Amino acid sequence: MKVIVTGCDGYLGFPLSLHLLSQGHEVVGIDNLSRRRRVREVGSHSATPIYSPFERFMALHEEFPEFKWRIMDLRDYTEVEYVFEKHAPDAIIHLGEIPSAPYSMIDVEHCNETQMNNIVGTNNILFAMKKHVPKCHLVKLGTMGELGTPNLDIPEGYFDVEYRGRKDRLLFPRNPGSWYHLSKVHDTHNIIFACKIWKLRSTDIQQGVVHGIVTNDMMRHCDCLEKTLDPRLITRFDFDEVWGTALNRFCAQAVIGHKLTPYGKGGQTRGYIALRDSIQCMTIAVENPPEEGEYRTFNQFDECYSVNELAQHVIDVAGEFGVDAETWNIENPRVEAEEHYYNPDHDNLRKLGFKPTFSLDDELRITIPELMKHRKRIEEKSDHIMPTIKWRK
Amino acid sequence: MKVIVTGCDGYLGFPLSLHLLSQGHEVVGIDNLSRRRRVREVGSHSATPIYSPFERFMALHEEFPEFKWRIMDLRDYTEVEYVFEKHAPDAIIHLGEIPSAPYSMIDVEHCNETQMNNIVGTNNILFAMKKHVPKCHLVKLGTMGELGTPNLDIPEGYFDVEYRGRKDRLLFPRNPGSWYHLSKVHDTHNIIFACKIWKLRSTDIQQGVVHGIVTNDMMRHCDCLEKTLDPRLITRFDFDEVWGTALNRFCAQAVIGHKLTPYGKGGQTRGYIALRDSIQCMTIAVENPPEEGEYRTFNQFDECYSVNELAQHVIDVAGEFGVDAETWNIENPRVEAEEHYYNPDHDNLRKLGFKPTFSLDDELRITIPELMKHRKRIEEKSDHIMPTIKWRK
Repeated sequence: MKVIVTGCDGYLGFPLSLHLLSQGHEVVGIDNLSRRRRVREVGSHSATPIYSPFERFMALHEEFPEFKWRIMDLRDYTEVEYVFEKHAPDAIIHLGEIPSAPYSMIDVEHCNETQMNNIVGTNNILFAMKKHVPKCHLVKLGTMGELGTPNLDIPEGYFDVEYRGRKDRLLFPRNPGSWYHLSKVHDTHNIIFACKIWKLRSTDIQQGVVHGIVTNDMMRHCDCLEKTLDPRLITRFDFDEVWGTALNRFCAQAVIGHKLTPYGKGGQTRGYIALRDSIQCMTIAVENPPEEGEYRTFNQFDECYSVNELAQHVIDVAGEFGVDAETWNIENPRVEAEEHYYNPDHDNLRKLGFKPTFSLDDELRITIPELMKHRKRIEEKSDHIMPTIKWRK
Repeated sequence: MKVIVTGCDGYLGFPLSLHLLSQGHEVVGIDNLSRRRRVREVGSHSATPIYSPFERFMALHEEFPEFKWRIMDLRDYTEVEYVFEKHAPDAIIHLGEIPSAPYSMIDVEHCNETQMNNIVGTNNILFAMKKHVPKCHLVKLGTMGELGTPNLDIPEGYFDVEYRGRKDRLLFPRNPGSWYHLSKVHDTHNIIFACKIWKLRSTDIQQGVVHGIVTNDMMRHCDCLEKTLDPRLITRFDFDEVWGTALNRFCAQAVIGHKLTPYGKGGQTRGYIALRDSIQCMTIAVENPPEEGEYRTFNQFDECYSVNELAQHVIDVAGEFGVDAETWNIENPRVEAEEHYYNPDHDNLRKLGFKPTFSLDDELRITIPELMKHRKRIEEKSDHIMPTIKWRK
């Protein structure tokens, strides 16, 4: 299949492009390199060194000479339309958005930029699809964070409602927790409308938190006939307060001998999935498109953990590598429930054949020793780990 | 009270400002005059002649010398912040958005412009409120169109859900029918979040279709001691396919001897409210603010009619003025249910004292003869009445 991957320079986009190529798909990557700029903007960097776009491109190109990468901005509709007309993709996996809650909470400019960037990029894709490839399948990366933490099970997309004796099937209500998460909710509503009026097809992936930095595709033969990691192929590991997840923060803190800092009571529970399993899921979505006009939702995660449990897993696995760590629950800079019910459905992907391959501990046993190699890079930016961006000011 | 009215040059904003002034409130109007430009853009004009902003300002200023009008764009955060800091309003009634479904459906540029204009303007207001007047009450003009036509009663805002044996109170799911209606849904979610994290207070008015062009405040004493309409004070009457409502279209068509054109089967049912009652409701909202951190919803309409019923009311009232009219159901350019259940709650405003004063027929008896004076202006733009903007292309 011919697949466009937007955000192909990002945490998910790069290993996903690599995987789709190694599965024999044709891939056109799109990126405006803004993640690199925005991480620099907050004074940080990835713990894993990220090669230049040209070196990354060449690393893919060596094995997959048909790989294409376009440096362009999705906010430019003329460019988006050009790409859809030229490449006529079977599917587009849309990862090309600003993905950080704290970034969107910095101030009004970052709020508006996150929402405008994400909404306009997605709208442009919808209009270009309609015009040039109405049968193309849009895989949109949403987040479980669109749903918040209701006191109910969370269905995948729609649910049956009975109200005052009447029945209907409605979209499950959204309750997001940052301007960024709101941008994903806005995308969701916009995409549903496009599917309805133009009969486009879309898979909305409500993903949990992804963890891990290495996939099998990154292992290449070396002289000694043993597969080793090609350092040009590793993906980002952001650990600063803006771009890092709680799990990444804990890993980085453990490696540099800092206490692990859950926010608040640490009872916030979320879904988690290993990087390679996330990629497996997105590949399944692409290879099993929905019907014309269909909008479907996958709740994409494997395991659920509270933030305190996450910290304990990091402590335990770090211990296996001789690293001592402990937790220090700090004041929560966010506004979120710290104790709550959490039970989202996640059957749709399993029905299509998804089998999780790496648990949190499996991945941590790969991530932590890899990070220990880059301890200096983490120490260099250790001032950027503790939270300064507050939901309430 | 000191009230900011954004969109004070618009259909609702101008008579609302006039009413608040005549009730003794202090009013700061804000407008970027974009409605005038955008109606010109599609080649049309208001059937009622609209005086220049300066003449309108002077007409208000004569009676209310403390009235202020700022020509500015809400997308400019620096300006928005300046206004909130300078005037420290008790309330802001936010009508300053692009309000047309067909306009947003013209093409990708109009879609993005509608969403960006509306979202960024509202976000800027939220951030400026938070910074300078966190106790200020935001009255946001939404639309019943955010909700679509579910097969359930539509509550005002939140509803009690039972799902798989568990219970919660959730926002009623949105199902809007155009990029414009989507922008209002996006506003809703953004405002709820701001109320949650910053303890702002907001009333979300999910309004039905407003009709009428004259209010009591527009009647001023003349020499003969009888109150007559000051022509500088009348509000807009748009009737073209982009800016006119179905009801306005029918009135204009009746006046120029054109058949009335319901779209499709004409069974689309919506809520309606007279202009002066809409203004009464918004005044009630302002004078009865919600609590700190409270986000509340008013479903603001008086009567429900199907499109065919609307047309019949126009035909009947036009007949009273010697005008013969008939209907011609044309192909529906929109994607919408043409037969459906419709039963939204509308108790909240009544509990605060709202009493409808003018029915659809009452208003039509004022509007139609007024329009007959401007028959030439309607004929001049009669080419712009029939629909050319289609939801599916």
